[in-house]
Amino acid sequence: MFKRVLIANRGEIALRILRACREMDIETVAAYSQADADSLPVQLATEAVCIGPARASESYLNQDALLTAAMGTGCDAVHPGYGFLSESAEFADRCKEAGLTFIGPSGDCIRRAGSKASACALMRRAGVPTVPGSEGAVADAESALAVAEQVGYPVLVKASAGGGGRGIRRCDSPEQLPSAFDEARAEALSCFGNGEMYLEKCIVNPRHIEVQILADQEGRTIHLYDRDCSVQRRNQKLIEEAPARCLTAELRREMGVAAVRAARAVGYENAGTVEFLLDEGNRFYFMEINTRIQVEHGVTELVTGIDLVRQQLRIAAGLPLPCTQEEVPLQGHAIECRINAEDPGADFRPCPGRAGFVHFPGGCGVRVDSCLYTGWSLPPYYDSLAAKLLVHAPTRLEAIRRMRRCLEELTIEGFPTNAELSHLVLYHPDFLRGTCTTSFLNEQLDALLSWDRRAGEREETL
Amino acid sequence: MFKRVLIANRGEIALRILRACREMDIETVAAYSQADADSLPVQLATEAVCIGPARASESYLNQDALLTAAMGTGCDAVHPGYGFLSESAEFADRCKEAGLTFIGPSGDCIRRAGSKASACALMRRAGVPTVPGSEGAVADAESALAVAEQVGYPVLVKASAGGGGRGIRRCDSPEQLPSAFDEARAEALSCFGNGEMYLEKCIVNPRHIEVQILADQEGRTIHLYDRDCSVQRRNQKLIEEAPARCLTAELRREMGVAAVRAARAVGYENAGTVEFLLDEGNRFYFMEINTRIQVEHGVTELVTGIDLVRQQLRIAAGLPLPCTQEEVPLQGHAIECRINAEDPGADFRPCPGRAGFVHFPGGCGVRVDSCLYTGWSLPPYYDSLAAKLLVHAPTRLEAIRRMRRCLEELTIEGFPTNAELSHLVLYHPDFLRGTCTTSFLNEQLDALLSWDRRAGEREETL
Repeated sequence: MFKRVLIANRGEIALRILRACREMDIETVAAYSQADADSLPVQLATEAVCIGPARASESYLNQDALLTAAMGTGCDAVHPGYGFLSESAEFADRCKEAGLTFIGPSGDCIRRAGSKASACALMRRAGVPTVPGSEGAVADAESALAVAEQVGYPVLVKASAGGGGRGIRRCDSPEQLPSAFDEARAEALSCFGNGEMYLEKCIVNPRHIEVQILADQEGRTIHLYDRDCSVQRRNQKLIEEAPARCLTAELRREMGVAAVRAARAVGYENAGTVEFLLDEGNRFYFMEINTRIQVEHGVTELVTGIDLVRQQLRIAAGLPLPCTQEEVPLQGHAIECRINAEDPGADFRPCPGRAGFVHFPGGCGVRVDSCLYTGWSLPPYYDSLAAKLLVHAPTRLEAIRRMRRCLEELTIEGFPTNAELSHLVLYHPDFLRGTCTTSFLNEQLDALLSWDRRAGEREETL
Repeated sequence: MFKRVLIANRGEIALRILRACREMDIETVAAYSQADADSLPVQLATEAVCIGPARASESYLNQDALLTAAMGTGCDAVHPGYGFLSESAEFADRCKEAGLTFIGPSGDCIRRAGSKASACALMRRAGVPTVPGSEGAVADAESALAVAEQVGYPVLVKASAGGGGRGIRRCDSPEQLPSAFDEARAEALSCFGNGEMYLEKCIVNPRHIEVQILADQEGRTIHLYDRDCSVQRRNQKLIEEAPARCLTAELRREMGVAAVRAARAVGYENAGTVEFLLDEGNRFYFMEINTRIQVEHGVTELVTGIDLVRQQLRIAAGLPLPCTQEEVPLQGHAIECRINAEDPGADFRPCPGRAGFVHFPGGCGVRVDSCLYTGWSLPPYYDSLAAKLLVHAPTRLEAIRRMRRCLEELTIEGFPTNAELSHLVLYHPDFLRGTCTTSFLNEQLDALLSWDRRAGEREETL
């Protein structure tokens, strides 16, 4: 096992990694920017190294600084967390060249999974259902029009290097396509430095269902069941659940098998997530493979009892999977609410700032993952995630009620959060019935913000 | 189900009950003393009623005030928590007479279980092993001497109404017996207003193993496996675990069966705990039945996934048990550390006071039950419990390591706690090997307090 791991990340995921390392008697080095000097990971790590100024490009995205920090402190491995360099094939390669174990898949695997066009081609060959669309990239708007005619409107123009809702446009008719193509390509070039585009049929009112994967160095691959992350706004997930309520046992099995097949198709190793869209007819389509630990991994940990970050470290050290596919437990229901420093009433404007009094919920079936503490200033330079609240209960309805009371107990003074909005969602009939698609939050946002919660309580006869 | 429950308690258990009620859509009334006016349960309850001044005899032990509060606020049930009136048969009766459901066993059942002498007689009749000793009460020191000759020294002189280490004396020889008898009786009279005494063989170096029981109104009784609470000081538990590591599968089954038999012997209803002593030869002896929820119930919740306070409410409302004996899950290992406001270096002097900065651990497999928050003053009038930290992990060693990192993350400023002592215990070879008896903490206390933790780390090759 590793002796010392560099944590090349910040915030709650840095703390998450630190905790897993500490529980395995692995020393930690927190790589931090000047903006994070008084953060919890810095305080709790075995050692902490400042890798640059606040701006991520000069710190958390600064490969030279991170590699120097890792070498200079005697680390033998690097955990990239999520975001930042976690899906950089180049960084994975450079770690390896420097003699450091990158805790995640190889650079080549990240490349195979990372280009959506080539990943979809691999999936089709492996028999994993994909969204109808172009075979690989489309060179220009004209080729895109031809493909759109074939698959039928609406379609999506998407950047191969895209993510987080950037570099993507929907077109409902041929007239819209040329300008959408140009806009999306321009956005992709500016965001990702890569203008490669492809085209897909737009799945209307889909659910976002993803399957957690673990694959060891011997090629053994298992899935840890599914998560429903349909409650999202502009591709930013707000509430995640495990398992996905909408799946029948048969569909769950099929999607699990497809996810394992998808992972094998790209030669996957370590923890990863295969994302699918599920349409109104319960057909599922491969969307992408995320080659990292995800923000919402905790709901899977709650229902399976398997510590995913611990498994990441074990797999990277060459150890085998914790169990066979048949032995993976699936118990009860888990929900996560992301608490962001943002103002839902002002178009979700990020509002990081100095936290006043902070108090987290606790008790039976409750987990809190957060770096926030009374008096800490959430830096404005990064994402606005302030805390993740997670609950686990025998049934979905019990989990929903548990999460409601957690949100009622939560106190964060100093900046606005989306906690009240999440609380309202937990009373919405669509959420209670488990029928939310990815359009739910966008469509219901105004209604929710002006909603009398009592109305929802009356609906709750499920 | 109940509409509104009076919480006749304070501190973390009041919050625990409130959370369970809220998750079941039951309204709560927090009955509080003047010393608890700004406590979390008071802030979070549907309604709060001051029942008297700080002194417990005038508030939390004041039956008239509690009954008046329950009636005046339209409650239909009363949850007594632990301590205070939770094992008062009189209070249970008075609730019933007032038309309120007492959430716990009936007054008659509390009486049958509550007198240790009569409970032991019932156990012998039911075939539950008891410690050799007097058949019922002994009238005076002379009768005690005769019994002691029969069972052999060392013996314990114990008050029938005793508890928490009060009204109990050990005698290693006949010479010590008369004065020990008088002392214990005087203590029992002053603490419990009841001087009835009995005599038992002293089990040397026992473990404290207890079995959690659930019994519904139809007489269906199941156990939820065992807890090892051997790490205690003067009968005050410090660290509790579930399941007990020292039990073989066969012994676990036998003790479970014995516990169910014990519960049936007193006509038990609701959640309860059957406490046993386990001697060096793995023989177990019935000690007592606690007719209430226990402080350490959370470790059982973690390994079984069954919410015990929810079950208490359901059973009291006439609902059936959640599952059969065969269906009770037992997954992984759980540990609880009680964090008390006390100074282990000064004979555990209670040190309640105003909390400065408070920060609790979180993350995978961690549960915190506490009323403490930054700036709150822990009142000096009651017990010194400030927080319960609980962890759950697949194996005992993983749970131990998880608890260590929790104690390292815990920050409570403003008063001393036993957190550092618990942390040291988690490195002690006896604790790692799972061989602690109830004498462990008393015998090792000085060594622990002056101990270099690094020495323990080297031992950890288990």
